[in-house]
Amino acid sequence: MKYMKNMRVAILGYGNIGKSAEQAVLLAPDMELTGVYHHNDSLDSIAADVVLICTPTREMGRYAELLLAQGVNVVDSFDVHGDICMHRSRLGAKAIAHRAVSVVAAGWDPGTDSVMRAMLLAMAPEGVTYTNFGPGRSMGHTVAAKAIKGVKDALSMTIPMGKGVHARRVYIELEEGADFKEVEASILADEYFAHDDTRVEVVESVAALNTVQHGVKLVREGVSSGVDNQQMSFDMTINNPALTAQVMVSCARAAVRMQKQERYGAYTMIELSPISLLPGDEEDLIGKLV
Amino acid sequence: MKYMKNMRVAILGYGNIGKSAEQAVLLAPDMELTGVYHHNDSLDSIAADVVLICTPTREMGRYAELLLAQGVNVVDSFDVHGDICMHRSRLGAKAIAHRAVSVVAAGWDPGTDSVMRAMLLAMAPEGVTYTNFGPGRSMGHTVAAKAIKGVKDALSMTIPMGKGVHARRVYIELEEGADFKEVEASILADEYFAHDDTRVEVVESVAALNTVQHGVKLVREGVSSGVDNQQMSFDMTINNPALTAQVMVSCARAAVRMQKQERYGAYTMIELSPISLLPGDEEDLIGKLV
Repeated sequence: MKYMKNMRVAILGYGNIGKSAEQAVLLAPDMELTGVYHHNDSLDSIAADVVLICTPTREMGRYAELLLAQGVNVVDSFDVHGDICMHRSRLGAKAIAHRAVSVVAAGWDPGTDSVMRAMLLAMAPEGVTYTNFGPGRSMGHTVAAKAIKGVKDALSMTIPMGKGVHARRVYIELEEGADFKEVEASILADEYFAHDDTRVEVVESVAALNTVQHGVKLVREGVSSGVDNQQMSFDMTINNPALTAQVMVSCARAAVRMQKQERYGAYTMIELSPISLLPGDEEDLIGKLV
Repeated sequence: MKYMKNMRVAILGYGNIGKSAEQAVLLAPDMELTGVYHHNDSLDSIAADVVLICTPTREMGRYAELLLAQGVNVVDSFDVHGDICMHRSRLGAKAIAHRAVSVVAAGWDPGTDSVMRAMLLAMAPEGVTYTNFGPGRSMGHTVAAKAIKGVKDALSMTIPMGKGVHARRVYIELEEGADFKEVEASILADEYFAHDDTRVEVVESVAALNTVQHGVKLVREGVSSGVDNQQMSFDMTINNPALTAQVMVSCARAAVRMQKQERYGAYTMIELSPISLLPGDEEDLIGKLV
């Protein structure tokens, strides 16, 4: 199968995700990388059909609006679950006004996990879905642990105990003169850790534990057509930034295709058809995958 | 959350799948069951927005065309993998001509497994996907075993050995006077069984082994953004007709919604957005699932 490299893709932001996205675009058979932009670069007249916004979450909305106003499609990995609806409707208005498409919250959770949760619900409308994260590094909990007085560096790992229950293991380096018992008590009392089985351990070097490995196990125990005990699960162990960036790159295709179909607006991944994420011809993909 | 029962659904065919579909429609918060039609019933002026075609696969195309010609949306679980593209384009032409929507090959394989394969490919574009079926009853192999001379009744179970390799266990009742060794040799030589590790066993009653339990394990070992060893799997153990029917009922929503959006044509499940399968308000679903 031959592909045309006819989708021009640019990247904004060059941290973990931006660097992985660069690799994913270079490996995509249908894409041409037309630029990598840093935070402070000018975004006027970007020569791209779609821009992958790989900045910190809180800056994504502002950059997306700037680009959509030029009629350029955008993809972001906005990950504050509670604010996704607001983010989507803000960018949706801008996208419609400028005949462009924005894919928001593209990644694995939110993102492909959201798609799995939607599919599991369509397969078993009654029942319970458990989302078990890890084992892997939790960004939010790591930041919370680092903010505790007396902590020089920290890494918080999420350990799944099943049925959506998580344990935390917090590895810390102490500031000189800090008292372990006091620091430990502060961590255990913190809202981020107070509700889980949390253990704190002092290590020589947090940097030496560094890992971007993460995972998830989604379990649904439910009812299909009135029949109980339908058991379904989705499980993965992955390099976190590599998967997030890859999913963003796949979503870039959906953005460009939906613009061509004049379906302007902002979409989360559960609003996209899976086939629109893939390179190649529709009939070929249907023959191969269905 | 309150739902309006404003989607009128009818069922055509009343075998295993039709009976399960009846339960699924009755349990759906947004659907009204307006009729169950048998094979020989008249299909003129059906009072439904969408009809679930639960007949044998080979009759689905003919019934779908009859209904689409009346502008009625249809969902089928057409399951001959190699003929799906042809079936889809045949029904697509009819659907477009009559401003209706047809969802084809709705079920779990083809169906939700197809969606999983597409998502796994979007997440890790290079790599290998293994589809491991079972343990469960294989319809095709059961029919093949029953056709062997000397076999009174048969049940062929598919046993997954991993990496897409399957073993077969064939339970048979012999016709009076039939020779086991001859029957066994015929089964082992049959094209359906010749390539797998197959064992044949005589039982007193095949009916006593009857089960509709089935399952699948989809495994992808691939590369995201150039990073190797991304490990993903989807696993389920389910009641087969209950899941097939439930997925068809969920796809009925997508058919009706796409007709309202004037997106006429025939679609496989990888062409549908997951959100379109679910009852309720878009923003509510996004808030809950993403």
